[in-house]
Amino acid sequence: MIDALRSDESDLYALVESFFRESFSTDNALITEAVRRMLAAGGKRLRPRATLLAAAACGGDPVEHLNLAAYMELIHVATLIHDDVVDNAQTRRGVNATAVDFGNRVSVLAGDYLFAWIFKNVTAGYPHPIPNILSATLADICDGEVLQLRALGDLDHSLDDYIDVARKKTASLFAASAACGAIVGGGDQAAIEALRAFGDSFGIAFQMNDDLLDMTGDAKALGKPVGNDLTERKMTAPVVLALQGGDAAFRKGFAQFYAGSNNDDLPAVVETIAAAGGLRETRRALTSFVERAKEALKPLSESAAKHQLSALADALIPRE
Amino acid sequence: MIDALRSDESDLYALVESFFRESFSTDNALITEAVRRMLAAGGKRLRPRATLLAAAACGGDPVEHLNLAAYMELIHVATLIHDDVVDNAQTRRGVNATAVDFGNRVSVLAGDYLFAWIFKNVTAGYPHPIPNILSATLADICDGEVLQLRALGDLDHSLDDYIDVARKKTASLFAASAACGAIVGGGDQAAIEALRAFGDSFGIAFQMNDDLLDMTGDAKALGKPVGNDLTERKMTAPVVLALQGGDAAFRKGFAQFYAGSNNDDLPAVVETIAAAGGLRETRRALTSFVERAKEALKPLSESAAKHQLSALADALIPRE
Repeated sequence: MIDALRSDESDLYALVESFFRESFSTDNALITEAVRRMLAAGGKRLRPRATLLAAAACGGDPVEHLNLAAYMELIHVATLIHDDVVDNAQTRRGVNATAVDFGNRVSVLAGDYLFAWIFKNVTAGYPHPIPNILSATLADICDGEVLQLRALGDLDHSLDDYIDVARKKTASLFAASAACGAIVGGGDQAAIEALRAFGDSFGIAFQMNDDLLDMTGDAKALGKPVGNDLTERKMTAPVVLALQGGDAAFRKGFAQFYAGSNNDDLPAVVETIAAAGGLRETRRALTSFVERAKEALKPLSESAAKHQLSALADALIPRE
Repeated sequence: MIDALRSDESDLYALVESFFRESFSTDNALITEAVRRMLAAGGKRLRPRATLLAAAACGGDPVEHLNLAAYMELIHVATLIHDDVVDNAQTRRGVNATAVDFGNRVSVLAGDYLFAWIFKNVTAGYPHPIPNILSATLADICDGEVLQLRALGDLDHSLDDYIDVARKKTASLFAASAACGAIVGGGDQAAIEALRAFGDSFGIAFQMNDDLLDMTGDAKALGKPVGNDLTERKMTAPVVLALQGGDAAFRKGFAQFYAGSNNDDLPAVVETIAAAGGLRETRRALTSFVERAKEALKPLSESAAKHQLSALADALIPRE
């Protein structure tokens, strides 16, 4: 049974899910409820799976590290709860101000409490450097989000700038998830560094995949409107690469769109981005980060877990 | 010079101030700027002073622990930054929604980053249990704030309920500040516990003092309108104690006020609270917590620092 769990990636997912369903609880009922609702909304649990597979790839037993794996997802959930605060003013505009206010208050506090609860448990249960890696990661995430905010609508944002933001905002948590899994799984320094590097490249590819989905996915699967990143004037990979590869007419038209506030025909904007090569070049860049992620795994000895990490990376490459 | 700093409490304050002015910086310029502005707005720096005096009372050299002391103030600053998010919807109502949104985004991220930055430094620089005490304290603060929110306008909120909230929301950080100072100052278990208990009682008295100032202070000194807690329908100590001691007519009138939304004559409301004994009984309760705080220091051997901690507690008793 345990052997099956160790080698079967889908059982690993089930294990994380049942852990959240049956074992997650904090001392504050309102906050536990808010987090449970967030968890029940779904998600691929890629961060905890990275932790568990990294532990297994280093010879550890993933079942022993479910708590640590869960904290990786919960850090992500806490940032999502705070993202909701950020968007409240927009999505609830027009609604009773008291509701907005009460929603914001509880969301800020619930996210803060969750961060604190995670750090309380991690500092009580895990040795140095794990608590330090997690707090440095949270600092990176916030730093990346601030950089992203400051770059909204900035058409000079280069691919290097984009990667810098994605590395902090998104990849840092994947890198930490894999590195911490390697540490508790008993990996040596080379294995820990290999898995950290895997998480870093995986995370950048993941962000590019997310950017593509925002333009090419359907609203139901996304859980948000298509083209939401465009509405927010984010400098996503397809935008950056279309501006880099497109002609002067595209750049001029796109600059007008990002300087304005008209979002009536997002599908047409996506078409111009596609015509300027933005989607194709993003797929190409994404694929190169997937290759780098797999390359990073090379120093590890062969194992089912190593192959599953490779497969997780491959799954980020969109089918055309 | 160092000896003078050790024994002179006002020099300790100057030391904290100059540390913030000259040594505080994070990797994110925008966030450093936001925190500096918050610090420049003033404050008595009671939390870092508690840490430094506790370290000195245990025989340590406070000058060696300025970083840790500063983190105590910065945890407080981060919670204030998040409190501003909470109030944004009210104070900026009517203002351009983009400004509200941008303000909220940066404030949430700046507070999160600051928490993460503090934990990153504490987990790198301080041994167990200090990182654990600080994260547990932050969890308590948030838990207390959620409890306070849920108790808004709840006229059945008892003095025990009030103390439970104040202990978590306010006193936990004073208790942690003093306990961590004792730990790094080399105090034994009894000294650490004595200083933790001092911080706990000091913090509850501090909150009662804050409640009184909201009703009796002047807006300029407070930096916010007098009666703000009443406007928010908070169950402060004077309200709880007036409801407990007042007659049926007072309780009925006050219940109508808290159920409504009229805030036109707050001074008259304060007068009815005063007439029902709310201010007097709060002073009495506050004084008893000051006595408890000083009592908690008894196990410590005599020192200038111990006397200064006593004096800080005495200073919380309002002159009638």
